[in-house]
Amino acid sequence: MSDDVAQVGQPRRRGRPARSAAGAEPAARDRILTAARSEFAERGYDKASIRGIAKGAGVDPALVHHYFGTKEQVFAAAIELAFGPTFQVPELIPAGPPEQQGERLARFFFGVWENPVQREPLLAIVRSAVGNEAAAAVFRDLISSKLMVRIAAELNVPDPQLRSELAAAQLVGIALLRYVIKMKPLADVDPEYVIALVSPGVQRLLTGDAPAGDAPAGGTPGHASS
Amino acid sequence: MSDDVAQVGQPRRRGRPARSAAGAEPAARDRILTAARSEFAERGYDKASIRGIAKGAGVDPALVHHYFGTKEQVFAAAIELAFGPTFQVPELIPAGPPEQQGERLARFFFGVWENPVQREPLLAIVRSAVGNEAAAAVFRDLISSKLMVRIAAELNVPDPQLRSELAAAQLVGIALLRYVIKMKPLADVDPEYVIALVSPGVQRLLTGDAPAGDAPAGGTPGHASS
Repeated sequence: MSDDVAQVGQPRRRGRPARSAAGAEPAARDRILTAARSEFAERGYDKASIRGIAKGAGVDPALVHHYFGTKEQVFAAAIELAFGPTFQVPELIPAGPPEQQGERLARFFFGVWENPVQREPLLAIVRSAVGNEAAAAVFRDLISSKLMVRIAAELNVPDPQLRSELAAAQLVGIALLRYVIKMKPLADVDPEYVIALVSPGVQRLLTGDAPAGDAPAGGTPGHASS
Repeated sequence: MSDDVAQVGQPRRRGRPARSAAGAEPAARDRILTAARSEFAERGYDKASIRGIAKGAGVDPALVHHYFGTKEQVFAAAIELAFGPTFQVPELIPAGPPEQQGERLARFFFGVWENPVQREPLLAIVRSAVGNEAAAAVFRDLISSKLMVRIAAELNVPDPQLRSELAAAQLVGIALLRYVIKMKPLADVDPEYVIALVSPGVQRLLTGDAPAGDAPAGGTPGHASS
């Protein structure tokens, strides 16, 4: 354990080849992320600790700090790992007929969530973010910058970031009711049927005209177009 | 404290007027529900206990059992209290022009969630249900029977319960991103503007034609129409 730390901090001059230390780094980093995911999933964000994550990964806590910094930063890295596949979504917007943007998004979303190996880490992240304000803030900042801002950049409507958030809300709401609450029949129905039902609404949010009146009624602080 | 229990269990024959005992019942019951809400919100469903709820309400744990039974049943009562206003939703479906069903639902939803006094108990329930499977099951059964089944009964489409769940998913997803994750601009934007943007999609889910092909592709177990 303390060997790992020594490798990164003040490397001890022993006969060990540098190549071996370099090879160990990604392995230890991956183990830490996997352990972090379990720690956040099992203990919740509040009670998760760098010490617990280090123990799970079989490394010294100093190595966790070295790779990731604070608990918030470990959580951000766990989000990036779990949501990695989703970060391709902005590229899907222009990758096909414009009138099928909603369907492409919905189909990609279910492709990720229907896979249990990808779903479990996502569920762990969502549970942490819903249960804890600090975790919610990390989640919000990362999903905004990596996903919402980049989807919005591909849209040609007023208030594009609000539109991308409302489209995301439809899909996130379905994930919540289908995979977390397991409400029936939604939890059992064929994803293709759900895609067929929700795609027109998602498409409208991404590409539809602004509502009559155009500007938000009542004046809106923090509004994307302001 | 133990006086309360005595009143309900084996009433002691003292000079105390029955009227006073009857008057005390609803007060104690309300105190228990309020304490349950705080206990679930602060400790999470897992760690919440009948003992903790009783302590918060200033009553004997036996009185909590007397009124509500198990922890799951206290949680169900807390959901009923928090979601009480929402249980009017099925009546909204036929209460106006059919082409405005989506808008009526969305406007009612924000009317409840924009009010902090109503929002806080809802958030506590949602956090508990997302964080714990037993709480999710209680939530699912109650929301299904009190809300989804009754909304579905007002709809004139194939798979009406699936439709009502997908419409709920759009609104619940917005609540999650706006009030829990606080994603911007969605968290700051005027609710009327959000209502204008999402109502057409909600309306389509509640009243729109079945997707081409009609039956879910691939055959679907547990599907509402099967």
